[in-house]
Amino acid sequence: MAERPDITLACIQYEPLFGDPDRNLDAMEDRIRTAHDRGAGLIVLPELADSGYVFESPEETARLARPIPDGESAARLIALAWELGVYIVSGLAEAAEGVFYNSAMLCGPEGFIGAYRKLHLWNRETLFFKPGNLGLPVFDTPIGRIGMAICYDGWFPETFRTLTAAGAEIVCVPTNWVPMPDQDPGVEAMANALHKAAAHSNGIYIACADRVGTERGQPFIGQSLILDATGWPLAGPAPRTDEAILIARVSPGALAEKRQLNEFNNILGDRRTDVYG
Amino acid sequence: MAERPDITLACIQYEPLFGDPDRNLDAMEDRIRTAHDRGAGLIVLPELADSGYVFESPEETARLARPIPDGESAARLIALAWELGVYIVSGLAEAAEGVFYNSAMLCGPEGFIGAYRKLHLWNRETLFFKPGNLGLPVFDTPIGRIGMAICYDGWFPETFRTLTAAGAEIVCVPTNWVPMPDQDPGVEAMANALHKAAAHSNGIYIACADRVGTERGQPFIGQSLILDATGWPLAGPAPRTDEAILIARVSPGALAEKRQLNEFNNILGDRRTDVYG
Repeated sequence: MAERPDITLACIQYEPLFGDPDRNLDAMEDRIRTAHDRGAGLIVLPELADSGYVFESPEETARLARPIPDGESAARLIALAWELGVYIVSGLAEAAEGVFYNSAMLCGPEGFIGAYRKLHLWNRETLFFKPGNLGLPVFDTPIGRIGMAICYDGWFPETFRTLTAAGAEIVCVPTNWVPMPDQDPGVEAMANALHKAAAHSNGIYIACADRVGTERGQPFIGQSLILDATGWPLAGPAPRTDEAILIARVSPGALAEKRQLNEFNNILGDRRTDVYG
Repeated sequence: MAERPDITLACIQYEPLFGDPDRNLDAMEDRIRTAHDRGAGLIVLPELADSGYVFESPEETARLARPIPDGESAARLIALAWELGVYIVSGLAEAAEGVFYNSAMLCGPEGFIGAYRKLHLWNRETLFFKPGNLGLPVFDTPIGRIGMAICYDGWFPETFRTLTAAGAEIVCVPTNWVPMPDQDPGVEAMANALHKAAAHSNGIYIACADRVGTERGQPFIGQSLILDATGWPLAGPAPRTDEAILIARVSPGALAEKRQLNEFNNILGDRRTDVYG
């Protein structure tokens, strides 16, 4: 394997406005340019960043979802990635052959790279989107092997195990985290603990870009996070209510070393596949 | 299924003395009686609670490891469980047919119930113990279905997935957590985050009993923890250096309700077995 370069990640925590993709794409572009100015080479945006989150009718989904990569939201991000020479992962509402997915797209200087469709739908999303049907793809790029997961996907350890087994080095997580039942707002979000555990147990970098604000009565919790492959935060958690851009430098080339915990233990090699497959 | 009674758990965080099982069993008995006096019906003790942890030669293992259930350590705990009418899970150094395991035993008022042998050995343990060969058993008792895991087992999400799939309601974790690389001593231990994530993602109660103190230069980190099936602490984390007894009441009968996160989502039912088996 060619030596992997280091890469600067950015997570953009922002507040979309429901139902106004043009305004949202303007806001995303503004923050992507800022992240690029700060040296970012891979920029992650929240779930459903173009449409907003709280759909109330199938008509709204039909009006706001757009094809990937040929719809206006995807095309605008692809053009921006080309112009700036950066990689971008963003959550987007996707229309495909008459149905709709809660999706994420990866694009870069070379154009569209790939899409992911959220496997685990949360709550009333099930009324407006189809469950993902593209599995958990990993895309080999010049900056590393990149996987994507969206919000509630992170509640399932298999998400990260499967991406890691497929070679993922950096998992980008566009998300719209909501408060969990019994969450004490004064303590670390369960979402943060779940992703720390996933980064640590798999030896992968994880970049979670959450939104903030309250939409149609639904609050979101911020606390975006960029995690080292040891599970410790490299940047964040971001504030709970304010917009923010997190920046951290990661070294996909260092993963083999990080996964070797000591002379005897490798976090992936120690799996007892004879017991649990 | 008959209605499950509530049960009071105790985690005993204590400091064994290496190589002195008689002294350690006296100390364990003292703390088990205290936990019983405080209402505990299921009492969890640390990993290798009878022997201590930092073995330096095979001769030490041979001298200190004892059969389960017929050796002196196991027999003494079984007698105590019968006398007090409680369930006990303890880590023990096990001798079996000329080899040695880092094991845990479950016993109760009805006597010996079962043993577990640590699947994932940590660091120099590999020099003194064989990897576990009993899988991840779950024992159906009048107080609930109980699984066991030991220390580094908890670094593998499959441990808890497998126990949950086998019906575990309460997972008891005898442990000797050591500082992880890059651990900032001022922040929550990664071990705590890993078990919070496991309890939350599986909808199971988890009771981690750690040791404290420094043995032959190896520090241990305390921070024992009893977790609700939502992942939030019911008791602990205990102090980092002092002995402690954690007490919490749990309701195995409430697990079905806790696993149903809302009208649409069940933390176990939502798994995409079509994607990741």
